[in-house]
Amino acid sequence: MFLENCWYCAGWDYEITQGQQSVVARELAGQPVVLYRTPQGQVVAMEDRCCHRQAPLRFGHKQGDSLRCGYHGILFGPDGVAREIPGQAVIPPKACVRTYPVVEKDNWVWVWMGDADKADPALICFAVGPGDPEWHMQTSQVSVNANYRLEIANLMDLSHVAWVHRSTLGGNSQWVDAKKTYTDIQNGVNTAFWMENSPPPTFTQHLFDSDAVFDMHASIDMTLPCNFVMRFQVWTPGTAAVGKDKGNLLLDSWSCQAVTPRNEDWVDYYYSWGLSRATDAPGMSELLLEGVNDGFVEDKEMLEGQHRNIKAHPDGNLINIRHDEGPNKLLWKLDKLIEQERQAKSCAA
Amino acid sequence: MFLENCWYCAGWDYEITQGQQSVVARELAGQPVVLYRTPQGQVVAMEDRCCHRQAPLRFGHKQGDSLRCGYHGILFGPDGVAREIPGQAVIPPKACVRTYPVVEKDNWVWVWMGDADKADPALICFAVGPGDPEWHMQTSQVSVNANYRLEIANLMDLSHVAWVHRSTLGGNSQWVDAKKTYTDIQNGVNTAFWMENSPPPTFTQHLFDSDAVFDMHASIDMTLPCNFVMRFQVWTPGTAAVGKDKGNLLLDSWSCQAVTPRNEDWVDYYYSWGLSRATDAPGMSELLLEGVNDGFVEDKEMLEGQHRNIKAHPDGNLINIRHDEGPNKLLWKLDKLIEQERQAKSCAA
Amino acid sequence: MFLENCWYCAGWDYEITQGQQSVVARELAGQPVVLYRTPQGQVVAMEDRCCHRQAPLRFGHKQGDSLRCGYHGILFGPDGVAREIPGQAVIPPKACVRTYPVVEKDNWVWVWMGDADKADPALICFAVGPGDPEWHMQTSQVSVNANYRLEIANLMDLSHVAWVHRSTLGGNSQWVDAKKTYTDIQNGVNTAFWMENSPPPTFTQHLFDSDAVFDMHASIDMTLPCNFVMRFQVWTPGTAAVGKDKGNLLLDSWSCQAVTPRNEDWVDYYYSWGLSRATDAPGMSELLLEGVNDGFVEDKEMLEGQHRNIKAHPDGNLINIRHDEGPNKLLWKLDKLIEQERQAKSCAA
Repeated sequence: MFLENCWYCAGWDYEITQGQQSVVARELAGQPVVLYRTPQGQVVAMEDRCCHRQAPLRFGHKQGDSLRCGYHGILFGPDGVAREIPGQAVIPPKACVRTYPVVEKDNWVWVWMGDADKADPALICFAVGPGDPEWHMQTSQVSVNANYRLEIANLMDLSHVAWVHRSTLGGNSQWVDAKKTYTDIQNGVNTAFWMENSPPPTFTQHLFDSDAVFDMHASIDMTLPCNFVMRFQVWTPGTAAVGKDKGNLLLDSWSCQAVTPRNEDWVDYYYSWGLSRATDAPGMSELLLEGVNDGFVEDKEMLEGQHRNIKAHPDGNLINIRHDEGPNKLLWKLDKLIEQERQAKSCAA
Repeated sequence: MFLENCWYCAGWDYEITQGQQSVVARELAGQPVVLYRTPQGQVVAMEDRCCHRQAPLRFGHKQGDSLRCGYHGILFGPDGVAREIPGQAVIPPKACVRTYPVVEKDNWVWVWMGDADKADPALICFAVGPGDPEWHMQTSQVSVNANYRLEIANLMDLSHVAWVHRSTLGGNSQWVDAKKTYTDIQNGVNTAFWMENSPPPTFTQHLFDSDAVFDMHASIDMTLPCNFVMRFQVWTPGTAAVGKDKGNLLLDSWSCQAVTPRNEDWVDYYYSWGLSRATDAPGMSELLLEGVNDGFVEDKEMLEGQHRNIKAHPDGNLINIRHDEGPNKLLWKLDKLIEQERQAKSCAA
Repeated sequence: MFLENCWYCAGWDYEITQGQQSVVARELAGQPVVLYRTPQGQVVAMEDRCCHRQAPLRFGHKQGDSLRCGYHGILFGPDGVAREIPGQAVIPPKACVRTYPVVEKDNWVWVWMGDADKADPALICFAVGPGDPEWHMQTSQVSVNANYRLEIANLMDLSHVAWVHRSTLGGNSQWVDAKKTYTDIQNGVNTAFWMENSPPPTFTQHLFDSDAVFDMHASIDMTLPCNFVMRFQVWTPGTAAVGKDKGNLLLDSWSCQAVTPRNEDWVDYYYSWGLSRATDAPGMSELLLEGVNDGFVEDKEMLEGQHRNIKAHPDGNLINIRHDEGPNKLLWKLDKLIEQERQAKSCAA
């Protein structure tokens, strides 16, 4: 089950170029979608199935602002309407494929999978893109063979950093013990917490004395369907107690992560991490990206194992723990929105 | 759904030798079949499942004109009847496996999957085999992860050559625009057309001046289940208008293609292309085969993508175009024959 | 369908070490199981699914005699009960995973998959382990993509040695013709037979004159679910007729084979073969293992082909042969025990 009336990230903007061969296929929330960029620079998203015999349009050829199906040559405009059917003059009214609203923002390409007239760009989550001159963002991506709800639960409960990522992003028991504050935000939940007098993450410990400690502050906006935007700051020890205005900000970073359900069994994960230009140092933003890359390999293994177990035992008799508070908040919002969509559809029908 | 009362191509004759180890397994129209050649040279086709515990007979050993199951040693004669059951004297009447009528023709091995008493060799399609001394035929094969009905549609509408094969077999808009003539033939449809004043196929353009044009004539017998036999001729420009007797025949070729459904999801494709000895030149028939090999890789990608889309969206809301005339003619014949078989069976039952 | 109240072999004891990283995952009779060895040397077997969100415990970390889930850090004691849930003081009563009785015997690790209070170590089959000082046992293992009932049928009817293994373990028609004696034993069937004046197995024929013959005696205990323990002896020719006390024992060997159903489609096979120290010679026990390794590759190919055919044609119309007597005896016992378990469960419910 997917939310339809929301923006799904279809990847980084630099993947969809004006090059003649650049036609990109994605699966978004269970629908095959093909994306291309017109000579005017606009990104078009259409169903990746020709209305004639379901040939994938991804094998097609760009022609002006249109896409020609690679099988029998039907030419579709950026509105999805057939402009030409080779071999005949008449174009039947049903000769069209569905198109989807697209917005580029913060170097991500966003596609709206629901009713086009509800597609409000203001609903796209805040993020800091790799193109932002004030931040030195590094980007990457990974695919995970797991349901996206497991990703939501993973990202909404960072206590797992202490266990899953103990050799990389972890190394600090306060990922578990820090007191989190949850605040409702538009279409999501903000989680904020301090980790005080804490050793640096394992993957950076070679840079510091072995007794080095810091105060670290995390503030995370998680918005549906599954976007994770974190500001993570490192301060001089004691800052949490005396207040940010009396501490020294040593490192200031954003990590922006969009998790797109491909279908019920796979997610595509587009993410970044980087420091402010003011607190960056040579190689530091690259080191952050390496750390998160390694961490996401650890998550991938765990989530894929969890997904396999759940598929084999859908009726697993489960317990809840205190750390489920975050995941439960967001999954409950998700379920409510999906149910609202379902009811709206059945009323309309 | 497969037609049963018809000949399916099980491959090239040279694949099934008299060698002691030569036991060949195929899946034909959903049935596992094992083939071997007796010392007398006859090809035997039997069900590839022992009647004892369904062990594949493909792991068996040839013994005279018989095949001994490799698991418990039951010896089956070329009629499928058990001649020996090791360890016991009595052979129960049900100790036999189904055999299928086999005919070798034009270097193809044909297997009849329906009622044996209806197996008429005269129903095998006309073809020119690689053994024919008057033609310089080159052979190859490919497997495609798609339903065979998609292959029928592909081969019955050559307008796709202009799009799918534009870098190989195409390069000429008349694949789309030429006026086709369709004629009913036994168990199929003939399609014939002229392409006038046309540039040569893309994969041969390096051989000619850039403004070279020809008249080309294609005549294709497509017969069920899915055999494509094309005579393709290249004539001096203007021949179409004045008649073949007043033109010069530059190249005269046959391409013979048998597409065998392995099951609902795969086809095995055995094909050839070659020139008459009279119009052949060194390397030319080999060049034709390279061209068609490259083209079939393009078809394979398209058909497999189409097959995946159709499996995911079996209810796809589709339009028809004028070029569907050919495919629809043959698919309609196929559906009618399958329905006739179904009714004949339910009457018999 | 699996028998639950029985011991399943989970592998060789040396695979489960006291090493900090040694956490071993298995699937036993359809259940995911994780095994580890405590500092005290005891092997613990628990369900490989955390009771919180079904994360695989195989990614966990050993801590004392406990296992800590690698996802959110829940610490499970060797009794499966959660001892610690990070981030909270209270441990809910349902915070536990199922554990299974484990016994190590003859260097195999045995796991009881049914009611723990019925787990009687006396029910574990007799075997000679690689640790036995009087025998020079060699060990190996293989996985086969087939249902374990096919393995039972394979091992209970050694006439197949003559056909499947004719180039390795076979080479002697008495595998087919020897008169077998079947005797009921606890939870299984013993099969015993002499092969008289017989050439040695094919894989050893390079060691002997071409006319060398022997009397060979096999006695096999096969017990449910699927354990095969064979004493195989080679005697001077004529011994069968005059009695073992008047012959010379040339080679005396045990082969112990445990076949564990992973699920309905796979088995994991742990096996050994070796000679008595009294009849061993340099390289001989190693040669036996090579022979059986090669033989099991032949079985694997056959059983996997048979399994595919049966999955495609579950209604295969089959005949029985005389050699089915052995397989039928044991499969009938298996079916009866499974049915008894089913009835006991439905009475209890």
